[in-house]
Amino acid sequence: PAAPNSGDTKNLPLDTLINLDHGDPRMYESFWRKMGDECTFVIKGYESLSYFSNPKNPACWFLEPKLEDSIKALHGAVGNAVTDGYSIVVGTGSSQLLHAVLYAVTSPDQPNQTSVVAAAPYYSSYVEILNLVRSGLYKWDGDAHEFDKDEPYIELVTSPNNPSGVIRGPVVSRDGGILVHDLAYYWPQYTPITSSLEFDIMLFTASKCTGHAGSRIGWALVKDIEVAKKMTKFMEVSTIGVSKESQLRVAKILQVVADRCKRFGSPEGDNFFEFSKNLLTKRWEILRETVKKTQMFTLPKYPLQHCNYTGDVTQAHPAFAWIKYKDGMDDCEMLFKEHKILTRGGKKFGTDPGFVRVSMVSREEEFNLLIDRLSMIQGLNNVDGYAAEIE
Amino acid sequence: PAAPNSGDTKNLPLDTLINLDHGDPRMYESFWRKMGDECTFVIKGYESLSYFSNPKNPACWFLEPKLEDSIKALHGAVGNAVTDGYSIVVGTGSSQLLHAVLYAVTSPDQPNQTSVVAAAPYYSSYVEILNLVRSGLYKWDGDAHEFDKDEPYIELVTSPNNPSGVIRGPVVSRDGGILVHDLAYYWPQYTPITSSLEFDIMLFTASKCTGHAGSRIGWALVKDIEVAKKMTKFMEVSTIGVSKESQLRVAKILQVVADRCKRFGSPEGDNFFEFSKNLLTKRWEILRETVKKTQMFTLPKYPLQHCNYTGDVTQAHPAFAWIKYKDGMDDCEMLFKEHKILTRGGKKFGTDPGFVRVSMVSREEEFNLLIDRLSMIQGLNNVDGYAAEIE
Repeated sequence: PAAPNSGDTKNLPLDTLINLDHGDPRMYESFWRKMGDECTFVIKGYESLSYFSNPKNPACWFLEPKLEDSIKALHGAVGNAVTDGYSIVVGTGSSQLLHAVLYAVTSPDQPNQTSVVAAAPYYSSYVEILNLVRSGLYKWDGDAHEFDKDEPYIELVTSPNNPSGVIRGPVVSRDGGILVHDLAYYWPQYTPITSSLEFDIMLFTASKCTGHAGSRIGWALVKDIEVAKKMTKFMEVSTIGVSKESQLRVAKILQVVADRCKRFGSPEGDNFFEFSKNLLTKRWEILRETVKKTQMFTLPKYPLQHCNYTGDVTQAHPAFAWIKYKDGMDDCEMLFKEHKILTRGGKKFGTDPGFVRVSMVSREEEFNLLIDRLSMIQGLNNVDGYAAEIE
Repeated sequence: PAAPNSGDTKNLPLDTLINLDHGDPRMYESFWRKMGDECTFVIKGYESLSYFSNPKNPACWFLEPKLEDSIKALHGAVGNAVTDGYSIVVGTGSSQLLHAVLYAVTSPDQPNQTSVVAAAPYYSSYVEILNLVRSGLYKWDGDAHEFDKDEPYIELVTSPNNPSGVIRGPVVSRDGGILVHDLAYYWPQYTPITSSLEFDIMLFTASKCTGHAGSRIGWALVKDIEVAKKMTKFMEVSTIGVSKESQLRVAKILQVVADRCKRFGSPEGDNFFEFSKNLLTKRWEILRETVKKTQMFTLPKYPLQHCNYTGDVTQAHPAFAWIKYKDGMDDCEMLFKEHKILTRGGKKFGTDPGFVRVSMVSREEEFNLLIDRLSMIQGLNNVDGYAAEIE
């Protein structure tokens, strides 16, 4: 369905700027539309007035029990993370959970701010999160490859990585380090599921799992209940908990996904991961073909691996394309912008500006325009008069 | 309906600890139950996937236009705040908005942390919010009455005040000060509406306005759009926006309140503020009578004032009772706890422990138990053998 020049672009003027800077997951709308009323969420005017969701939960009093159940059901069905023996903390997106982790694993009594690092290219928001209010508890210390201080540190391990899509482990291997695993993209549509992870602190988000970014629901699986309790305290002071409407709606959505994700090839096409993986696989095929034709860019290659969830040998189809300009151009983001494609340049990810990160999870019509315009960048070299055309 | 010893307590065991520490606004459930399906919120599985709500809003890209409209409609109908010429920023409760304001009105370039003060007794959470991550931008500097530094400062003005329910203005009056007005309780059920306020930064929350605390929706009315933009930036890095489900549901609820709040004495009883004010008035009458009988405590007195909204001369009926032990007891919170009433003691509000703050917006059965138990504290002086009874 993702053929370039298809009728799907008809609603967008040809000169519309397409915003592929954010990973706004509107690709998934078509699946949820197809599911009809089964995923409709209804709440009455008198329901969920209280601040409290579950005062008896020792780890997180504002976590809705239904959300807790569906998170466990989903990880169990997919096999991407262990939940037995873990505390679950819900957050307003996984961003808030990362703030909460930083608070939970540091202390005002320590002599210095704890250094926080991530291997470049790293998720651009980490820098902003770390610097936001100039905390005395922690500080951003840049690329993990260059960290050589003999002191406690926190390493953020993003796997699959944002922006590059590769599976990663920690880079600094030293005593006194705390690892935070950001696993937002460790779902079968993006990457082969090779094991059920059981790290100390694992962050997930509905935004990237099912595409419900507007709900702002993330969750942390935390091995040490004392860390979970401190995270909950952070959330209490920061926002007094997390939207109940969002928690209850996402609980319903995750449960629907979990209930149907073990059947493959069913005529209803109601396996969310199968549908999404097929769509991303097609998009990546088209993208790779287009990039190849331009002869100007390269894309990362991902290894073939056995996915425990599908049972197939497959490669990654990440939510972002990490595109490199072959000849080391200064500002690839600017080049794309001239072609009316908004992307995020390499510099923001701590690497060189010859890279751009481009969302692969946009609506169909935006993806089609991306492909059309990428083809036209090829034109820059081959077709006379093209420069005038893009003024 | 709030008679002590009524049948309403039958669902709670007589020795249940009642939690009136938080202002959990479950009193309002009965109103919303009565409103039936009109306030039911429905959202389909494919709706609101995107991060974005209104990319064209220069002040706040994640504010749902429907929420913006109903906030303006409600303030217009009640006449408690001006919205013309203001930017609206939505937050995950007003707590997050306070964090955002502190970020927005300070700068990493300033030589020192900006002092933040509030007149005692002040809302206990301010201290926690200010100290949370040891920000280099701002610091908690205690009671505004004692602030005498000759440097920029921020004063938090809570009006009506939490915990004491009185109307307040700024205490420090000096150049270079920034005022933040926390107006969570400036609604007609709690206090006479004497003017339509137009301060630089005004914070409101659905939790206290309609009782939808579980939704975590607050809003700020901000005169300077540059401040609003910085607040939005804070929210972007902190939580990438605010739950759309909550925004859309609260938009519906606020609109229902606004549409009906100009009719008084209608047989349907569908004026939210009229209903709520009547209920709080009754509770306060019962409380004052009970406290008088005990001869052990005092309550604040509130002036009679003309309310522009109702057109009546009336006094305040705050969401919290600020109860003082007459003989200056050391720990009034402990006394209440011995009588199985959880409250928040004066010390947390920067004042003496002879005070406790007690929620007046609990469910009916909890309010009734409060009254029963308060009457029994009287018994402590008068009835033999009572001490044994409360072990």
